[in-house]
Amino acid sequence: MQPPRHTSTSHNPGLLLDFERFTSDALLGHHLAEREVLRRITPHIPVTTNFMVQNHPNGLDYAAWANEVDLVSNDHYTLGHDPERHGELAFSADRVRGMSGGDPWLLIEHSTSAVNWQPRNRAKSPGELIRNSMAHIARGADGALFFQWRQSTAGSEQFHSAVVPHAGARTKIYREVKTLGQTLRNIREVAGSRVQPSQVAILFDYDAAMALKSGSKPSIDVNSLDAPLTLHRELTARGIQVDIIHPSAPLTGYKAVLVPTLFLLTADNAAKLDPYVTGGGHLLVTSFSGIVNEHNRVVEGGYPGVLRDLLGVRVEEFFPLFEDEKVGLDGPLTNGKSWCGAVWSELLEVTEHGAGSDAEVLARYTSGEMSGQPAITLRAVGAGTAQYVSTHLDRNSTGALLAQLITRAAITPVAVAERGLELVRRAAAAPSDSGPDAASTPSWLFAINHSSEPLALAATGLDLVSGARFTSGDAVAAGAVAVIREDPSA
Amino acid sequence: MQPPRHTSTSHNPGLLLDFERFTSDALLGHHLAEREVLRRITPHIPVTTNFMVQNHPNGLDYAAWANEVDLVSNDHYTLGHDPERHGELAFSADRVRGMSGGDPWLLIEHSTSAVNWQPRNRAKSPGELIRNSMAHIARGADGALFFQWRQSTAGSEQFHSAVVPHAGARTKIYREVKTLGQTLRNIREVAGSRVQPSQVAILFDYDAAMALKSGSKPSIDVNSLDAPLTLHRELTARGIQVDIIHPSAPLTGYKAVLVPTLFLLTADNAAKLDPYVTGGGHLLVTSFSGIVNEHNRVVEGGYPGVLRDLLGVRVEEFFPLFEDEKVGLDGPLTNGKSWCGAVWSELLEVTEHGAGSDAEVLARYTSGEMSGQPAITLRAVGAGTAQYVSTHLDRNSTGALLAQLITRAAITPVAVAERGLELVRRAAAAPSDSGPDAASTPSWLFAINHSSEPLALAATGLDLVSGARFTSGDAVAAGAVAVIREDPSA
Amino acid sequence: MQPPRHTSTSHNPGLLLDFERFTSDALLGHHLAEREVLRRITPHIPVTTNFMVQNHPNGLDYAAWANEVDLVSNDHYTLGHDPERHGELAFSADRVRGMSGGDPWLLIEHSTSAVNWQPRNRAKSPGELIRNSMAHIARGADGALFFQWRQSTAGSEQFHSAVVPHAGARTKIYREVKTLGQTLRNIREVAGSRVQPSQVAILFDYDAAMALKSGSKPSIDVNSLDAPLTLHRELTARGIQVDIIHPSAPLTGYKAVLVPTLFLLTADNAAKLDPYVTGGGHLLVTSFSGIVNEHNRVVEGGYPGVLRDLLGVRVEEFFPLFEDEKVGLDGPLTNGKSWCGAVWSELLEVTEHGAGSDAEVLARYTSGEMSGQPAITLRAVGAGTAQYVSTHLDRNSTGALLAQLITRAAITPVAVAERGLELVRRAAAAPSDSGPDAASTPSWLFAINHSSEPLALAATGLDLVSGARFTSGDAVAAGAVAVIREDPSA
Repeated sequence: MQPPRHTSTSHNPGLLLDFERFTSDALLGHHLAEREVLRRITPHIPVTTNFMVQNHPNGLDYAAWANEVDLVSNDHYTLGHDPERHGELAFSADRVRGMSGGDPWLLIEHSTSAVNWQPRNRAKSPGELIRNSMAHIARGADGALFFQWRQSTAGSEQFHSAVVPHAGARTKIYREVKTLGQTLRNIREVAGSRVQPSQVAILFDYDAAMALKSGSKPSIDVNSLDAPLTLHRELTARGIQVDIIHPSAPLTGYKAVLVPTLFLLTADNAAKLDPYVTGGGHLLVTSFSGIVNEHNRVVEGGYPGVLRDLLGVRVEEFFPLFEDEKVGLDGPLTNGKSWCGAVWSELLEVTEHGAGSDAEVLARYTSGEMSGQPAITLRAVGAGTAQYVSTHLDRNSTGALLAQLITRAAITPVAVAERGLELVRRAAAAPSDSGPDAASTPSWLFAINHSSEPLALAATGLDLVSGARFTSGDAVAAGAVAVIREDPSA
Repeated sequence: MQPPRHTSTSHNPGLLLDFERFTSDALLGHHLAEREVLRRITPHIPVTTNFMVQNHPNGLDYAAWANEVDLVSNDHYTLGHDPERHGELAFSADRVRGMSGGDPWLLIEHSTSAVNWQPRNRAKSPGELIRNSMAHIARGADGALFFQWRQSTAGSEQFHSAVVPHAGARTKIYREVKTLGQTLRNIREVAGSRVQPSQVAILFDYDAAMALKSGSKPSIDVNSLDAPLTLHRELTARGIQVDIIHPSAPLTGYKAVLVPTLFLLTADNAAKLDPYVTGGGHLLVTSFSGIVNEHNRVVEGGYPGVLRDLLGVRVEEFFPLFEDEKVGLDGPLTNGKSWCGAVWSELLEVTEHGAGSDAEVLARYTSGEMSGQPAITLRAVGAGTAQYVSTHLDRNSTGALLAQLITRAAITPVAVAERGLELVRRAAAAPSDSGPDAASTPSWLFAINHSSEPLALAATGLDLVSGARFTSGDAVAAGAVAVIREDPSA
Repeated sequence: MQPPRHTSTSHNPGLLLDFERFTSDALLGHHLAEREVLRRITPHIPVTTNFMVQNHPNGLDYAAWANEVDLVSNDHYTLGHDPERHGELAFSADRVRGMSGGDPWLLIEHSTSAVNWQPRNRAKSPGELIRNSMAHIARGADGALFFQWRQSTAGSEQFHSAVVPHAGARTKIYREVKTLGQTLRNIREVAGSRVQPSQVAILFDYDAAMALKSGSKPSIDVNSLDAPLTLHRELTARGIQVDIIHPSAPLTGYKAVLVPTLFLLTADNAAKLDPYVTGGGHLLVTSFSGIVNEHNRVVEGGYPGVLRDLLGVRVEEFFPLFEDEKVGLDGPLTNGKSWCGAVWSELLEVTEHGAGSDAEVLARYTSGEMSGQPAITLRAVGAGTAQYVSTHLDRNSTGALLAQLITRAAITPVAVAERGLELVRRAAAAPSDSGPDAASTPSWLFAINHSSEPLALAATGLDLVSGARFTSGDAVAAGAVAVIREDPSA
């Protein structure tokens, strides 16, 4: 195996992707060899290794690795420059839970405050350490560990935060770690439970992300993370829980499945979407999905190859936009408002179907080279729908699009609450002989307030963090976390 | 031969230039060896190889290569971020025609739409494919070929446009290629003709461009392309045809010769300019021309060394400007308006001549370190003039400067037309026994409308593209191309 | 010794610093070996080598080298893009004088005008060549030499300015060099004198600068030069002379000692500050000083480790700011105005002292994460004060802070003058038997006007430059230099 060399022009995308796969497989082989030894000498101790699932989909194909550990564990560090870094954390944690198949996992590393490898290393605000830890636990972690215990006085991580800072135990950081320790003791009954099934799934695939990064593409502004992260942020802000799963995972039970910039999609995984939609599922696909097969070869006949028939559209040419270039959209979908797209546009036609109804154009471009052309379509298929979005909608437009999807698919939030409260429900595994009365299974509602205002929540039960009763309409204080053991519904 | 190594400070400009020459010569030697073989085994087939004349003057000294091919051929790709990319195409095509000595040449590669190696790969607008192809043909190409036939599903050029896109033949691109094919059939009588002689020449030299790139210079904002391209754009916008020729080429017949940022100029080539001007030619030189000789050594005694006497000026020191720094200019030349310069200024004096008249200061700097000093001069020499511009004028000021040159030199456009119409005339070679009545030689006026408005044109004849008569005052439709076989003048 | 290699993450700061020290020591060893030879064969000729003290504290630990030369000499080139480049020159010259222990030194290289290694090489304005030369001499140089004599026509420094430009002797540059030669002849009596002792010292240390550059730090926006240079500029603008000395140098005689971003400070050098302050000295420390010891290890227990007790503060956590992020400050110090900080903030507490008074909070943050927390403190210690500034104050706020320090420490300017006049006094060494009447020692006041307005000065004596009497209240002309041999005070 030759690693890719410098070239005078550009690399072969297929070979680059193969090298990424080789790299992940070679390291996984090494892991298996080490596991072999450990299994022999410490058969009673579970084997794990710390994944680094974000930032950006770099690293290794951890979805494959997850099958080879006894416990999925992860490292996560927030990016100080992102004002919504808790949203990126939530996305990461949901990815990890997807890898563990919903089983409890472990956060092996995060930081009490600043790291030392970003250009400007933002220290955490008061309470942020606790909210970060609790958000991982809410999303399925059974523990959240810090790197490092005592802040190094020397070495590469000299200015990386720690449980015991250079300044010692009489510090904001150490006090917050102690508070967190008490909180974890208070909620220890949650350990071993699972996040309740979500109604929405996002398909995400490291292999597809690597394919998109391999070789020259129509625009450097397109990556695998932006579109799914934007959708996840907007759903989370509405109190809706999301699973992030591999394209090969079962889709049963999901009211909606989102396929955002999933560049590589195999015919087999695409084929699962037909019965899903026909059976009543709601599918949302965004641009530059389903472009190549597992060999990183373009599926011909019009984009998005393997999804073309289901969506009822055929894209004949990409029209990437320049930096700062925006396009307007309007149509039946936008309710008289103008929506806004960036980064990407496409020359798209609705195809005529022999069987079933044709896709409907819900919005057209109102500016740019594609002015007047279809931008967003929706096709009714059996009991479900298949929607296609050909540009990168901005945050507001994405929110408006999702609001309609939520209505169409009858998606419900984890609980009714003021906007901005992060909500996740964990529930004890129902005993195998539980029968029809599942309400007797205990459940815990995690509510994390990242804002500087109290936010009201419709939930009733005992808040394990404060030890006080929480009654519907009570507010979670600014910056606070509540873990409510919910009363069995009356 | 050692290639240049990393240095702890900076390289020797002379050695760097020698290495560029060595590189071009070594590859040319290889070409000659291959030609030798081909001449032996396929003596009846013309030999060519595809030059890549732009973007930016990188590559090889193709003016030297042009002597060693039976047919000059070129590759050209437009840069999507340039809103006037058709102007850069025109400049490139005129450079290639200069290399072929005016003989018909061949465009071996361009693209039907987007490429895949720019950061954001802009797709071509409807009709742009045809306008681009016809512009090369107008400027002397006898054919315009596309890379690639069928769009690759894999490999480095997977997302490079093609004649048959991924989406197949039922596409905008394929339809336009078919239309182009019909158009080329309609104008096939043009093949073999030559672009009529231009009244204006720009001196351009790859060797000078490489000299300017070799080693540390007063400002990184000065290059060999900006100044000639700006002059070419402003002349083309006024319907004036330009030849771009090597400094060693004959100047006979040109009403004006422009020498923009021609850093290296040999004494021999400079010497040709004296009789040219004395004999009635109009010379325009811009800053940082004539600085070094063929050994990349500065000509001492005041810049621009070899042009100092002819221009009647002596520059004693360069005053480069910072990014976003502008200087004002006014004087007899500017007619009460303030002109604007950037990038460069100079401490310049008009020299006293023993023989002939002294240069006149036509504009002075009105701001910056050089405020009050001469900025633009004009010297009457014999029947001609020699003008010097010491800064980089902006587009408007360049246009105003050229308007005066056009008047002074009695330069006429290819045809009278509304501004923005690209105009070139090709004419059949006059039969050797044609005698005085050259009007009987057929000529074809190419008119390309890059705008979104119809543009009127004073020409009469048969439009080979549409098959309809074109009468003076008729308009070329928005985005359209006309090729008018001109009626013999009455 | 292995030089540091590429790493997949980040380097060990201690090893990086050791490599910097090794590099300086190895080259110094080479210098000593060469000196050994020279001492043997030319024992009568002083040994020197040209330091390159700026720009930025790169290079070698010249403070150590200074002990091994007979005459300290330096190269200095101004940075064209810095509108206050004369201030950076002054800072550099004061650093060199600090290395020479106040003895006269030599400027071995500077330029008559533009250099050729900056992106855009600004030519010097009329008179700038003379002002630059005289500023070095004012600050202790006994000569100022130019690189290069005749401008090269070829080679790496082809476009570097020289005494004799490409354009020859009939040039602005050559005329100014001649004028400078006459001026130097006029002031030749100054040679051998010393700059009079300053009342203010800035501690600066190459070793500390290298420590700060070695490895990952909380923010890439913090360096060793910005804070001392800003303080130096603001003091110079007020006519106050500053010494820039090594942290190990004696502090006797200084009314104020400034410790700006002195990242590495040994316990021994820190210990000298206690008796200095107790004995009536005024200390000003800015953030990220005294963080590591000589092994590049953080001093634990709260920042700034070795200065914590003297300052009476304890910093428990750094809160670096993002680009363009500003914080407000107000309190008793700011007199009802809002001061402005950037780059850095800290979580800081005033510590309770067993002995002596506690520090007083003079300003608190009014915005940002640290809003309400202490920002600037002052502790009265014995007859002196110890002040701490936890952010990077902007220019105006720095000036206001220094104005209060000037009052508190009764610091006086070199002479009373309009703001903007650069002032330095050199004085002949007092004869060893001079006794109490030091006023009989001759002194020369250098006054350099970098502005475009005449600036009045309270001084009386003979201006050696013009040969005319200078009377108190006379103005130094715009762009001019005066060297006034001061009348013995009446």
